[in-house]
Amino acid sequence: MSGGSGTRLWPLSRAALPKQLHALVTDMTMVQETVRRVSGAGEGFDFETPIVVLNERQHDLARAQLEALGTAPSHYVVEPFGRNTAPVAAVAAELVRRVHGEEALILLLPADHHIRDVPGFRQAVGVGAGLAGQGHVVTFGIQPDSPETGYGYIQRGEALEGGYTVAKFTEKPDLERARAFLADGGYYWNAGIFLFGAGRLQAEMRAHCSDVLDACTAAVQRAEVSGSKILLDPEPFEACPSISFDYAVMERTDKAVVVPADVGWSDVGAWSALWSIADKDADGNAVRGDVELVGTRNSYVLSSGQKVGVIGVEDLVVVTTEDAVLVTRRDTCQDVKTIVERLKAEGRGDLL
Amino acid sequence: MSGGSGTRLWPLSRAALPKQLHALVTDMTMVQETVRRVSGAGEGFDFETPIVVLNERQHDLARAQLEALGTAPSHYVVEPFGRNTAPVAAVAAELVRRVHGEEALILLLPADHHIRDVPGFRQAVGVGAGLAGQGHVVTFGIQPDSPETGYGYIQRGEALEGGYTVAKFTEKPDLERARAFLADGGYYWNAGIFLFGAGRLQAEMRAHCSDVLDACTAAVQRAEVSGSKILLDPEPFEACPSISFDYAVMERTDKAVVVPADVGWSDVGAWSALWSIADKDADGNAVRGDVELVGTRNSYVLSSGQKVGVIGVEDLVVVTTEDAVLVTRRDTCQDVKTIVERLKAEGRGDLL
Repeated sequence: MSGGSGTRLWPLSRAALPKQLHALVTDMTMVQETVRRVSGAGEGFDFETPIVVLNERQHDLARAQLEALGTAPSHYVVEPFGRNTAPVAAVAAELVRRVHGEEALILLLPADHHIRDVPGFRQAVGVGAGLAGQGHVVTFGIQPDSPETGYGYIQRGEALEGGYTVAKFTEKPDLERARAFLADGGYYWNAGIFLFGAGRLQAEMRAHCSDVLDACTAAVQRAEVSGSKILLDPEPFEACPSISFDYAVMERTDKAVVVPADVGWSDVGAWSALWSIADKDADGNAVRGDVELVGTRNSYVLSSGQKVGVIGVEDLVVVTTEDAVLVTRRDTCQDVKTIVERLKAEGRGDLL
Repeated sequence: MSGGSGTRLWPLSRAALPKQLHALVTDMTMVQETVRRVSGAGEGFDFETPIVVLNERQHDLARAQLEALGTAPSHYVVEPFGRNTAPVAAVAAELVRRVHGEEALILLLPADHHIRDVPGFRQAVGVGAGLAGQGHVVTFGIQPDSPETGYGYIQRGEALEGGYTVAKFTEKPDLERARAFLADGGYYWNAGIFLFGAGRLQAEMRAHCSDVLDACTAAVQRAEVSGSKILLDPEPFEACPSISFDYAVMERTDKAVVVPADVGWSDVGAWSALWSIADKDADGNAVRGDVELVGTRNSYVLSSGQKVGVIGVEDLVVVTTEDAVLVTRRDTCQDVKTIVERLKAEGRGDLL
């Protein structure tokens, strides 16, 4: 899933050049990292060449990046409109079923997450594949290490081989509840990565969100195919509800299971997250690009080209692009949304 | 005196586009402000059209700025090399003596200072003109309001009409001495603005720094004149010592007097000074250019074109140009010199 155009990493992430097309953690862009993460043989399973779902504005650059990687996806599915994640699953299920059959498994994962421990992740996918092969719809659960209020939480139920049934999903709890979840110990963060059989998913969608299934299956059937590019038919796709996979499927199905995956996962949902996962110097600074630091500590500085000089500060985030600069405390960087909202209100689409 | 290429306001101030050619405090550039400050009739005296001394790289832009102002200088004197301030005084004295005679008075002032109270300044110049007409070499003294260690201090001696004799100059005292000067009350900051008769100055230079006088007089005599542009002869000028007016004349002559000038003077020697003299919003922020602030206090933000977003910070300075960005605490902005030194060491003349 590479169709997002997140603004939480403004000013770097833009509609035309979103987060997943930037090299933010390693020298690879995040979509490159993601494709690399699911390439080749695992233990007891193989990854097929991936299918990338994105929008038209991102298509050319994403394709160029992935072809440069030498492990090109089999298909690029272009969404004429963004419709959240449930339709992506429905499109994938129909495409995979046609080629590989109903029993084939689909790993649905966002192209803008970072996973430090790739072997560990692939091991968890192997465990999940076992459960998905038995007809479960698998989500991966991250052991929480802080009471984040921006994530979904999964309460685990009965133990299964390699995972647990899901007792309950809770989306974005308040701080008090998040603390209680952490203290309880039986909760995971929902990583937003899913694993399921193509036929199972279609059956669950038939039961729980048939409008999504019908619209997306039609959009695939009538798609305009040109080489490896599949342009979904806009007419049925436009009619499809915009709904998340969590809400449309996971919270409704009785087949949901969670596989714990302690793999250094981050959704890179804010600049502070990039500081957290980055390699840092002895003063706790993480730097990318042409940067000079003087007496600076525990800060994140990213330059897209300019020389950036930072003097005497602590716990700061500085991000520069050709046409915009962000300076924020690490612990206020969620407020970048306030700036993004102002820019929208001012009609500054050139900056978004 | 518009020949400086100060780096204390990096990244905005550059060799090719120094501080005095930027609009930093008002909508006028500092050289425009300076020429406007000494235009027209004062009380009991007239200002002649000014002479601007600068270097070749700055000539065209300074001329364009001053012609746009509608009060164009009579001459632009181009120094082939920078030789500090004493040679500027010697050049001015020779040029003025030739046109206006030995009795004519010269006000020698830097083009990169800010003076808030221009009528008060012109009144002080009138007082100084009386003393200069009696053969004194006048400097203007600013009432200190903090123990600055970066300025020269003037200890006043006997009272004269409108001023005092100078008991002693002390250049850049340590903090302890600066505090003692402030407590004493009989000390002024040396504003670096001087007033003297052309003949008197030449006589004092003959006595105290004849090498400067001879080199500069020869450089004027052999100058290449083209309309209002006077290119000093490089040969004698190159041989001229590089020395400040304070050191070459003021600290040696017995004609030195100080005229107090409580006129809102600033040498704008650091970004923190610009914050101090700027108009501020209710949160104590001073902003120039396309800036969005969220939860920010007592900060100075200058954008040269980019959208700059600043979130959750206090006491910060953020300055952006097309190719460089500075982020510093207000109280560490003197350390910009460290960055400038690194850039020199790295051969990054493009950024200096």
